[in-house]
Amino acid sequence: MKTLVLALGGNALIHEGQLGMYAQQQTNVQNALACIPSLVRNGWHVVITHGNGPHVGNLQLQEQALHGKIPEMPLYVDGAMTQGQIGFMIQQALSIQLGKPVPALLTRVQVSARDPAFRHPSKPIGPYYSKKPPRGAFTHVPKKGWRKTVASPLPQKILELNAIQTLLKKEQVVICGGGGGIPVVKKGKKWKGVEAVIDKDLASQVLATALNAQKLVIATNVDFAKLHYETPWEENIVRAKAKGLECLLACKAFEEGSMAPKIRACIAFVEQGQGHAIICHTNQIEKALKGLAGTHITR
Amino acid sequence: MKTLVLALGGNALIHEGQLGMYAQQQTNVQNALACIPSLVRNGWHVVITHGNGPHVGNLQLQEQALHGKIPEMPLYVDGAMTQGQIGFMIQQALSIQLGKPVPALLTRVQVSARDPAFRHPSKPIGPYYSKKPPRGAFTHVPKKGWRKTVASPLPQKILELNAIQTLLKKEQVVICGGGGGIPVVKKGKKWKGVEAVIDKDLASQVLATALNAQKLVIATNVDFAKLHYETPWEENIVRAKAKGLECLLACKAFEEGSMAPKIRACIAFVEQGQGHAIICHTNQIEKALKGLAGTHITR
Repeated sequence: MKTLVLALGGNALIHEGQLGMYAQQQTNVQNALACIPSLVRNGWHVVITHGNGPHVGNLQLQEQALHGKIPEMPLYVDGAMTQGQIGFMIQQALSIQLGKPVPALLTRVQVSARDPAFRHPSKPIGPYYSKKPPRGAFTHVPKKGWRKTVASPLPQKILELNAIQTLLKKEQVVICGGGGGIPVVKKGKKWKGVEAVIDKDLASQVLATALNAQKLVIATNVDFAKLHYETPWEENIVRAKAKGLECLLACKAFEEGSMAPKIRACIAFVEQGQGHAIICHTNQIEKALKGLAGTHITR
Repeated sequence: MKTLVLALGGNALIHEGQLGMYAQQQTNVQNALACIPSLVRNGWHVVITHGNGPHVGNLQLQEQALHGKIPEMPLYVDGAMTQGQIGFMIQQALSIQLGKPVPALLTRVQVSARDPAFRHPSKPIGPYYSKKPPRGAFTHVPKKGWRKTVASPLPQKILELNAIQTLLKKEQVVICGGGGGIPVVKKGKKWKGVEAVIDKDLASQVLATALNAQKLVIATNVDFAKLHYETPWEENIVRAKAKGLECLLACKAFEEGSMAPKIRACIAFVEQGQGHAIICHTNQIEKALKGLAGTHITR
């Protein structure tokens, strides 16, 4: 089975400057996924994962607006809600392009309760506050205010892996792993949701590796991974080996929270299997798969 | 394959008088689902569907609170979000009881664009307004205000039926069909979301019939379907034949929007197959399956 994992960045749904009206998002994601029918015709089994940053942020703002009147949900439940929201939008887009229904699965991802990330929350999420709230970890952003900061632990295991495999074999396209998955930790015989955010590219890599995928495609809002990004001597990386990228990572050549985790995901993917990883723009996925666009990473 | 479809009423998650704090809902649903492990041990393949009324109402209030700042989602997208929210809570509860992950699938349900329900919206949803809003269908509720009223068309087809069947065979328990499914109509080669609410019991019946299920269990907040409900001569219905219930429905013996659609779902289920239907309280599911509680309906 030829398997490809496509990780869609948030810009596949909401373009820069857009507010995120439903009709806009539906059009955007339909365009980003124009590549899927030809992949399916060529015998690829495709897993589609996606980000959820702006969606979960909006939902938290909406919940907070009625604080005290309607109980707010924990962050991981908000994550589950955006999996429903975005999963449906992707499902609708794919149904149009494939002429048949495509399943979307809720996905939980196990992290370690001992992950050092829990001692050093680093991922800012949700609304800004003018005063520092009494509880929780907050970071101050100049001119904007205090923002909640949560842990971003490493994904260890996709809980619904069996179901994803079963569906992928039979249905050929599966939507899952939204927003990096709903983070849970194992406590005895049960899983507990945790207030954290898992990087969606790293979760997509763990999934791609577990599925023995041949390709991991990370689609984002830049056309290449770049050296000296946003400087006058910026340079596209067209081809790269994992070892070379490791050196660049060590020199902090890529921005944390943005390109660095994508590069890390690609390195881990090519080093743990026989696969090939691509980083490309959401509107160049088809071209990138033909080798005509994007950054191509091999072992 | 012995298949049972269990349709959980909203009270399986939020009990009367509760606000719906996450921890409360998680405890409630865990109790309601205590019956699942023994069903699985006895070789049943179980599909769990659920209501979403209070959840979708809360979400709409939260969205409206930031009207003009964050784009509100259409009602069917809110439905998809609650499938994520409640699907996850059920998933967590089942993981504890079964010691293994259980898949939750987003589910779209096709309705007819020509369903007469679209000409006569009858289902009140969401917040109350003091003044009648300029657009859309609204109903006035004395002392409370104007409330949006949407169509409640009949479910025709579960779009993700194949995926549900595939998973059910392999994984034994599947969560799907939340809130009656996300309503879509077929337009040429594509499906379009529609502003409507599908009755979750009728959608569960369409699913149970399509799966050739042996049992349809509708779990709600009363222990029996009753004659002369809430009158001094109230009477529990313990056993009933479909034909007898049809007569009672014709005499308007059951409340619309409440017991009547449950009775209709049970009649349609037993008449279109060899199955047996049960209506019981969410905390008596196990007892009802042993024949010791609930209303039992056969052809």
